[in-house]
Amino acid sequence: MALQIRSLIRANGELELSLHDDPIPEPQAHEVVIRVEASPLNPSDLGLLFGAADMGTAKASGTADRPVVTASVPEGGMRAMAARLDDSMPVGNEGAGLVVEAGSSPAAQALLGKTVAAIGGAMYAQYRAVPVAQTLLLPEGATAVDGASSFVNPLTALGMIETMRREGHTALVHTAAASNLGQMLNRICMKDGIALVNIVRKPEQAELLKGIGAKYVCDSSTPTFLQDLTDALAATGATIAFDATGGGKLGGQILGCMEAAINRNAKEYSRYGSNIHKQVYLYGGLDTKPTEFVRNFGMAWGMGGWLLFPFLVKIGPAAAEVLKQRVASELKTTFASHYSNEISLAEVLDPGTIAVYNQRATGTKYLINPGKGL
Amino acid sequence: MALQIRSLIRANGELELSLHDDPIPEPQAHEVVIRVEASPLNPSDLGLLFGAADMGTAKASGTADRPVVTASVPEGGMRAMAARLDDSMPVGNEGAGLVVEAGSSPAAQALLGKTVAAIGGAMYAQYRAVPVAQTLLLPEGATAVDGASSFVNPLTALGMIETMRREGHTALVHTAAASNLGQMLNRICMKDGIALVNIVRKPEQAELLKGIGAKYVCDSSTPTFLQDLTDALAATGATIAFDATGGGKLGGQILGCMEAAINRNAKEYSRYGSNIHKQVYLYGGLDTKPTEFVRNFGMAWGMGGWLLFPFLVKIGPAAAEVLKQRVASELKTTFASHYSNEISLAEVLDPGTIAVYNQRATGTKYLINPGKGL
Repeated sequence: MALQIRSLIRANGELELSLHDDPIPEPQAHEVVIRVEASPLNPSDLGLLFGAADMGTAKASGTADRPVVTASVPEGGMRAMAARLDDSMPVGNEGAGLVVEAGSSPAAQALLGKTVAAIGGAMYAQYRAVPVAQTLLLPEGATAVDGASSFVNPLTALGMIETMRREGHTALVHTAAASNLGQMLNRICMKDGIALVNIVRKPEQAELLKGIGAKYVCDSSTPTFLQDLTDALAATGATIAFDATGGGKLGGQILGCMEAAINRNAKEYSRYGSNIHKQVYLYGGLDTKPTEFVRNFGMAWGMGGWLLFPFLVKIGPAAAEVLKQRVASELKTTFASHYSNEISLAEVLDPGTIAVYNQRATGTKYLINPGKGL
Repeated sequence: MALQIRSLIRANGELELSLHDDPIPEPQAHEVVIRVEASPLNPSDLGLLFGAADMGTAKASGTADRPVVTASVPEGGMRAMAARLDDSMPVGNEGAGLVVEAGSSPAAQALLGKTVAAIGGAMYAQYRAVPVAQTLLLPEGATAVDGASSFVNPLTALGMIETMRREGHTALVHTAAASNLGQMLNRICMKDGIALVNIVRKPEQAELLKGIGAKYVCDSSTPTFLQDLTDALAATGATIAFDATGGGKLGGQILGCMEAAINRNAKEYSRYGSNIHKQVYLYGGLDTKPTEFVRNFGMAWGMGGWLLFPFLVKIGPAAAEVLKQRVASELKTTFASHYSNEISLAEVLDPGTIAVYNQRATGTKYLINPGKGL
């Protein structure tokens, strides 16, 4: 049997997290069975794991081997949960491990005994069957820990740059920029010679980024933030931003500063603003407040959602494969991830541990090792 | 000499509106000189005329023939005025009148003695020279009053439908839908068989639209608004909206109701929401509050500015000419405009009159007749 984390929200507003016993899956012809050895707790996973529940209300029950956590979903959050009510859901976007069984297809057989990364949900489990197309063979010498985060962060970072290019921009802005993803984006941009404006929330995050060589870092906690940001935008010409915070005023402030930077060189007044298109994509929701902006950036602007999988579908499999191969070839350099702790499946369900990793704070990213403690 | 309205905002925060004496312009080869007989006070004109001034502070001075109005710009509004400070600006996007002089080109000569509509700013004037390319020859029997609003509203309404089609949508939503523009959009949609969801703010506006045959009308002042809107969106499949209000929560509510309408038919839960792209274009700013939304509509969404002139540039002159010719051929039916009052240039600068037309209320659209009272 194989353990798997499940997340269930009941119609009465209760979230229940538990470990589920499943048979070890049998592979289809085009699938491999991975013994998962490492799977990161990404912000996107936490969204599915906890839903709209208030984890301040988390209570432990069950046993040490089979812990259960319950928490309450505030009434205002239940509307968004309607579609998943009473549906016990597996969790875990990505991970890596050893291929212990393979389907009959040659592509699957070729991976037997190899360490691969994979994407496809339900990775917070001891064993997982996934289609070969959703795996990435790790290069010689790379461990499951090295490859655990091969998909979400690397392809998101590369996807941002690809989006920037395809939409006609030449430099970009990133928020929550000291995150694992943000540091990765800095490494890509330095390597590729792309100007990147980093926005962080704390002085120590600014120091961290400057320490790895970031040139433009703006700290939103300083009184000169808007001025600093406008200066950086004028220097780089960045007119596209990827915002992980989603809520609050930051997205609108970026558009406003882009317009101010453009207007430094404006020759004549137009009350509709510049005709240079300014774009902010909200790809996360670290700030759960409503999104709010004053429209002080003219009429040539856009804001919208950005999500990795629809982006990969849009660019097509050939273009996506180019991005994946770049990840494999730079796995231990450009695309290296760092984790502050490695925990077992049972520890994922410990309220004290949840209180730490659910802060989603820079430098406290956790890795799950489903084999730990068994 | 010819009178022209000018709007000036001084660095000290004072708005001054006045009448300026200019020589009657001489046409270039490709231009015609129009004796302006009718020019509408569009919301887009009021934005340039008053800038960020608080018209509650308007004071009259000058003489009956040469009135002057002054008003204060609140400190918070001055930043957005920076680029136009101490620049005396002519006003008036569009209008119509008789061609009294023509440049040497055959295209210009062909218009001599004809009544034409024109776009190009500075139309709140007795005479105006404009390039032939910015004119539209009115059909036989159409007066300057018939043609005064040939550009902004008709091309905006047609541009919305063209945008809807080009971006892959099949039905649309419009707010402030009882406006002149909104009624025009209803006539186009009924004629072309396009489903249109009208959003209004008052019961009498809903009645007005139903009276002209609108099928889907949602009144945001009723307690069932969000439910009614979701029903209308589910019935029409509209996934694009054009919002004249800009500020407040309406744009986000439309996206949220679109997602709810799509999810009525959803087969499985995705915490990233539906993968059907939902778009709201903010094309006006009737509500001057900040724009605010809760992100309850998944990740496949966009919000952005929409402006007629960049749109026309984007589709190119041939496609724009098709739209213009449709306006000319349906000028007195589909594209008919209605005005509640006809005022002189001097009356535009009367504080009591300003207090009425600056409400921008449905049914109180004013027309300027620059020849009146002279």
